[in-house]
Amino acid sequence: MKNVLNYIESEKERYLSELITFLKIPSISGLPEHNKDTVRAAEWLTNHLQQIGLDNARIFETAGHPIVYAEWLELQDAPTVLIYGHYDVQPVDPLELWKTKPFDPVVKNGKIWGRGTSDDKGQVFTHIKSIEAYLRNGGKLPVNIKLLIEGEEEAGSSHLGDFISENKDMLAADTVLISDTEWFADGLPSICYALRGISFVEVKVTGPNRDLHSGTFGGAVDNPINVLCNMISKLKSNAGVINIPGFYDDVLDLTQEERDGFKKLPFSEDKYMNDLGVNALSGEIGYTTLERTWTRPSLDLNGIKGGFIGEGAKTVLPSHAIAKISMRLVPNQRTKDISYKIEKYLKQIAPKTVKLDVNLLHGGNPVIAPRDNNAVQAGMQALEEAFGTKPVFMREGGSIPITEVFASVLNIPSVLMGLGLPGDNIHSPNENFDLNNYYGGIKASAIFFEKFAKTR
Amino acid sequence: MKNVLNYIESEKERYLSELITFLKIPSISGLPEHNKDTVRAAEWLTNHLQQIGLDNARIFETAGHPIVYAEWLELQDAPTVLIYGHYDVQPVDPLELWKTKPFDPVVKNGKIWGRGTSDDKGQVFTHIKSIEAYLRNGGKLPVNIKLLIEGEEEAGSSHLGDFISENKDMLAADTVLISDTEWFADGLPSICYALRGISFVEVKVTGPNRDLHSGTFGGAVDNPINVLCNMISKLKSNAGVINIPGFYDDVLDLTQEERDGFKKLPFSEDKYMNDLGVNALSGEIGYTTLERTWTRPSLDLNGIKGGFIGEGAKTVLPSHAIAKISMRLVPNQRTKDISYKIEKYLKQIAPKTVKLDVNLLHGGNPVIAPRDNNAVQAGMQALEEAFGTKPVFMREGGSIPITEVFASVLNIPSVLMGLGLPGDNIHSPNENFDLNNYYGGIKASAIFFEKFAKTR
Repeated sequence: MKNVLNYIESEKERYLSELITFLKIPSISGLPEHNKDTVRAAEWLTNHLQQIGLDNARIFETAGHPIVYAEWLELQDAPTVLIYGHYDVQPVDPLELWKTKPFDPVVKNGKIWGRGTSDDKGQVFTHIKSIEAYLRNGGKLPVNIKLLIEGEEEAGSSHLGDFISENKDMLAADTVLISDTEWFADGLPSICYALRGISFVEVKVTGPNRDLHSGTFGGAVDNPINVLCNMISKLKSNAGVINIPGFYDDVLDLTQEERDGFKKLPFSEDKYMNDLGVNALSGEIGYTTLERTWTRPSLDLNGIKGGFIGEGAKTVLPSHAIAKISMRLVPNQRTKDISYKIEKYLKQIAPKTVKLDVNLLHGGNPVIAPRDNNAVQAGMQALEEAFGTKPVFMREGGSIPITEVFASVLNIPSVLMGLGLPGDNIHSPNENFDLNNYYGGIKASAIFFEKFAKTR
Repeated sequence: MKNVLNYIESEKERYLSELITFLKIPSISGLPEHNKDTVRAAEWLTNHLQQIGLDNARIFETAGHPIVYAEWLELQDAPTVLIYGHYDVQPVDPLELWKTKPFDPVVKNGKIWGRGTSDDKGQVFTHIKSIEAYLRNGGKLPVNIKLLIEGEEEAGSSHLGDFISENKDMLAADTVLISDTEWFADGLPSICYALRGISFVEVKVTGPNRDLHSGTFGGAVDNPINVLCNMISKLKSNAGVINIPGFYDDVLDLTQEERDGFKKLPFSEDKYMNDLGVNALSGEIGYTTLERTWTRPSLDLNGIKGGFIGEGAKTVLPSHAIAKISMRLVPNQRTKDISYKIEKYLKQIAPKTVKLDVNLLHGGNPVIAPRDNNAVQAGMQALEEAFGTKPVFMREGGSIPITEVFASVLNIPSVLMGLGLPGDNIHSPNENFDLNNYYGGIKASAIFFEKFAKTR
């Protein structure tokens, strides 16, 4: 173990330059024009896994972006760790707000800046490098390893669920190790035990069969933008409550123990508002900010478009308007049920002057993991030894929809040993990843394997 | 007069090819990237006016797009007609819905297809050609002529009002002749005696200082798109009534005589809905479709934009959202008053979680003209003789804001001797202009000059 940790310490420079090569591939899964780049990222990764000594490194094609798999299964009596991550990244717009080029990573102030540095290329790479450190120092690991790295996490993991169901034997393991979350605060290692799910729908309202002159027709023909806005305004009440009938039916109340735990975390509402540049927060009455984002469902417009959106004025009464709406779900809501309920409600509130199309873009169920299992405890110990600070338990508002599939299909718990920090700007311009967390994360991964091996 | 009408008949082919040259210049005033094209259109027009024999043809620069002026003032005892029109055109998006290239006009089925054919290059050109017909047949006109052709009508005529105020003597006349409206129906020549005004505002709602991850922050931070939609939904009631306090204070009720006149016009609500492809109409309760679009104010969203609007999904809680909102005004509403009232109301209903910017893009007062004055009567006679059908009186929902300036600053009535047809698709893809109306319009213009000369 000491050899492995020393090796990691000595190879930092190479570990960084290899990560940069990986980051330079603009593997944006949500934009079809980048489909060649996701293929390129998958191929680069597969070659890399082969080179560091993993077995059966290969690409599985899907109807969407490819899945990368590799394994090391040479121990008969050791447990097996399935490592999950994703090589795809978010789109980069608005590009003008980036201080560096998103796909030309730059190291500055102890951080690496660029799209995918934290979410998730940098985080998943820590495990690849810890595996390499073992294989180059004695040729063996303390546990069996399976690596599953997908290319559609940022676009809803549309094909991974089926892939897992169809390859249960290949993927069988004792736990899933995932680094795709953030610490609660800088310097405070954290294990996340619950994630929200998501339902993402696109709504199109169509009025007249062509764009009309708003002078000639305004006042007699319903305007699709006005109609869409009216419908959106009916989705949430002023008290932050979502009005979709039956929306809260399956929501699990948070426990008093959780409430008490959250209160002890170092959270300043003033600092939070100041960082976001807002004068006031908003949300469901009766819940704190952490409770709202971690334990309560939400509904957000992710995009809206209609009519003339160029500079200046055009007096058009447009033919249609489109909105992208996502809802974050909490245990025990189910994405299929919620998508069905919003579609039904939207149809109910749409006036007969327009045509309505609701397109379910993607979804994922929420997940909550037991905090006392062996893998989670090994994760807590690994973080403490690697970073020298006692970790905390937290939940997260974001979604890694596939964690729920691991639980329900493979029947194994996930350990969310995240390495990101709150200022990483994931999904935003100027995404970055702290290099201490990158190198420390490689060590934590190595320690995790050893700790988890001992639990057998 | 016979000579002039015969000449017009014999020169049709040339009149068409000259119009096509004019139409090929993409003089879109609302898009800054076309600023060179508006200049080119103004220069081409000025040269053309000079060539046909008008005096003092020249360009007046403004802070926006240039104004073209020319005159023929050789009669001492004759009245003076100020002809107003515009050489600028609407943007052409969505381009994919055009069946021909918008700036490469095509003649088909007795119509000319392209941007600006009807609004307003084709219509204003009828007067230029009738003037030319007089000057080439005897060298004189029955009236004095002033031509004022601006380049900002589709962008709010921002600088023409000041120009008129500063050039009252140069522009002094007995009437303004304008062809920039449509007939009530194919084959039914019409004089429009009232136009709606307009107030056009752009509203920007800003929340957090950057785009956020909707999972991490959703539920605790107000979403600018949701906020904007909520605000928009508060602008109008379900009964089609605009909720802005004081909005209806100055609205003139329509008279029973007008209501009776409108009822006699050949209007089919079924045909109207069928043409637009909608299953139901909408609007202020207690008014017919014609009354709603001609005599009642309206409020329409002309554009909305926020967050991620590309293909696919991006789970962003956006920093801001923008809406373009226009209100059509009726006598005696005033655009300044209405812009003030909507700004005040928007500020009142904006939550403290966001920052609000309201930008008044442009405005124009509504206008209503006396139907019994000499110029209007000359217009009725000219249309009847040129087209062989008794014209009707109508109002229009659109705005030519400058008509109100002619009334209030120059103190002269306008004759809206429009030549467009309801199927001309102005402001839409596949704009077109009926060639019968083009050639007949040139004759009607020539006859108007003669009839109006006799009223002195």
